[in-house]
Amino acid sequence: MRIRIFFCNFAANFVYKRKIDMIRVAVLGYGNIGRAAEQAILAAPDMELARIFHHNDPSVSGDEKAMRENPINADVMLLCTPTREVPEFAEKMAKMGICTVDSFDIHGRIYDLRSQLMPLCEQYKTVSIVSAGWDPGTDSMVRALLLAMAPKGLTYTNFGPGRSMGHSVAAKAIPGVKNALSMTIPLGTGVHRRMVYIELEDGADFKTVEANLLKDDYFAHDETHVIPVKSVDELNNVAHGVHLTRSGVSGDTHNQRFEFNMEINNPALTGQVMVSCARAAYRMQKNGEYGCRTMIELRPIDMLPGETEELIKAIV
Amino acid sequence: MRIRIFFCNFAANFVYKRKIDMIRVAVLGYGNIGRAAEQAILAAPDMELARIFHHNDPSVSGDEKAMRENPINADVMLLCTPTREVPEFAEKMAKMGICTVDSFDIHGRIYDLRSQLMPLCEQYKTVSIVSAGWDPGTDSMVRALLLAMAPKGLTYTNFGPGRSMGHSVAAKAIPGVKNALSMTIPLGTGVHRRMVYIELEDGADFKTVEANLLKDDYFAHDETHVIPVKSVDELNNVAHGVHLTRSGVSGDTHNQRFEFNMEINNPALTGQVMVSCARAAYRMQKNGEYGCRTMIELRPIDMLPGETEELIKAIV
Repeated sequence: MRIRIFFCNFAANFVYKRKIDMIRVAVLGYGNIGRAAEQAILAAPDMELARIFHHNDPSVSGDEKAMRENPINADVMLLCTPTREVPEFAEKMAKMGICTVDSFDIHGRIYDLRSQLMPLCEQYKTVSIVSAGWDPGTDSMVRALLLAMAPKGLTYTNFGPGRSMGHSVAAKAIPGVKNALSMTIPLGTGVHRRMVYIELEDGADFKTVEANLLKDDYFAHDETHVIPVKSVDELNNVAHGVHLTRSGVSGDTHNQRFEFNMEINNPALTGQVMVSCARAAYRMQKNGEYGCRTMIELRPIDMLPGETEELIKAIV
Repeated sequence: MRIRIFFCNFAANFVYKRKIDMIRVAVLGYGNIGRAAEQAILAAPDMELARIFHHNDPSVSGDEKAMRENPINADVMLLCTPTREVPEFAEKMAKMGICTVDSFDIHGRIYDLRSQLMPLCEQYKTVSIVSAGWDPGTDSMVRALLLAMAPKGLTYTNFGPGRSMGHSVAAKAIPGVKNALSMTIPLGTGVHRRMVYIELEDGADFKTVEANLLKDDYFAHDETHVIPVKSVDELNNVAHGVHLTRSGVSGDTHNQRFEFNMEINNPALTGQVMVSCARAAYRMQKNGEYGCRTMIELRPIDMLPGETEELIKAIV
């Protein structure tokens, strides 16, 4: 133990890495989040990068025979694919006995995905951690913790300033829009303003585009401002933020006030959270705790590298 | 399930209470925290207050024979005693097969207490949750979560404004001091100012008392101001606060910034957190996960009343 800490503290990471059971983590998908996850794996003292897979690699997307002929030498696969592809890949990986972590972010369908994967994880003795990002994800853990601290009251999750992918895609789909960026601006109590920057197609009329956008279901319910720009690309920035508040009641004592704030690089945080959850998945599998879990079902300590004793002494 | 929610939502709590397996929670000690814990138990939809015990009740502090003759009809005992009495009572309860929750707050000895209780919990099939308050406790969970989000960087926990019991007792021990209140004021980056309000004994010299207090090891290392007052009692207020910050690195992305703030009634929050942990202890015991745990080893969902499905849909 002392030797491990010595090597770790003095940054001889490669020596440290050889001393312990390394967790082999693979990445499926190499967009913003896949790249960020790769960096987080490389920075982890207890992990090695198994491989980065493209979504049409036979190891991950062939039929069962092709997959068995191209086995994946990894303990955990991070599913850094578009959210809609997550359920299919998570099922395939479970059947190959590989744990998965995803950042599935369709809030209304998370429980269904968990129910879909649960029997497969139990049958094939794997752990699948779903919706492991910052919201859903770490924000969910903070919301759960605040409920435990003050069971009655109101929690507001305010997002931004930051880009909303869903709203940007919806804006881009309006006729006459060449490119669009929709920024989410927090106004408090869970109310948001949309600042939509649009690059018009040649000959498109701004007033018509603006009117159509404001009627769109994605924008009709929020305060929305549409701003024409020459280049959406020049505005691009992966910064995001959260301002989460709760005022609640502990026992019969009112006015207990809490807030959680962050200002972060969005894909970097998502990739890092997935990697920390990969560690938890690996440990839960080793411990025989097979199944599909959301982040509020994880023990925080399982996401951290190192020994229980050192972690308790350092953190608790 | 639908019926349960119906009763719960419409506040017919006593009907709801009969429909589910009620957790029987007892309280040992009836100071500020014991009273707050009592209120939190009464407010919980899935608990009933078993009994409040005085520390010299034969059920909790007799010899083993006396304890066996006065069995405690409870699933979990909250140890709301002075911190130094926690280890002994926790051991006794484990031997009676009763789960415990305490808010043991001597940071340097938490791991030792956990090690002391672990074999007893395993032998007698109980769960003991130690250091379940807000610091150590929920702050520890936030610190763990932030480490999972940005593994490299600095976390600062800034306390207050609020009363420090340890410093107040130390000030009261200075000759010439009749009563004292030491307030902790956060100055950022974990540095604190001490504002010490003292009520002098008849004939005591303020300058002498001040000089002795500033030399005391409790105060010598912090910026300390000593203020004479007529009545310390009139200043009493159980308000407290935390301002916890982290700036760190996710993967190889720096400048990820986080903060967690709260302004709370101190005993009310401590009592509530202990009660939420009693629920986790009960569930872990039912699930065969015997042992002694700190809060960073708990699943947040286990602290919350209700069904997994409803909680995931509401929080994640």
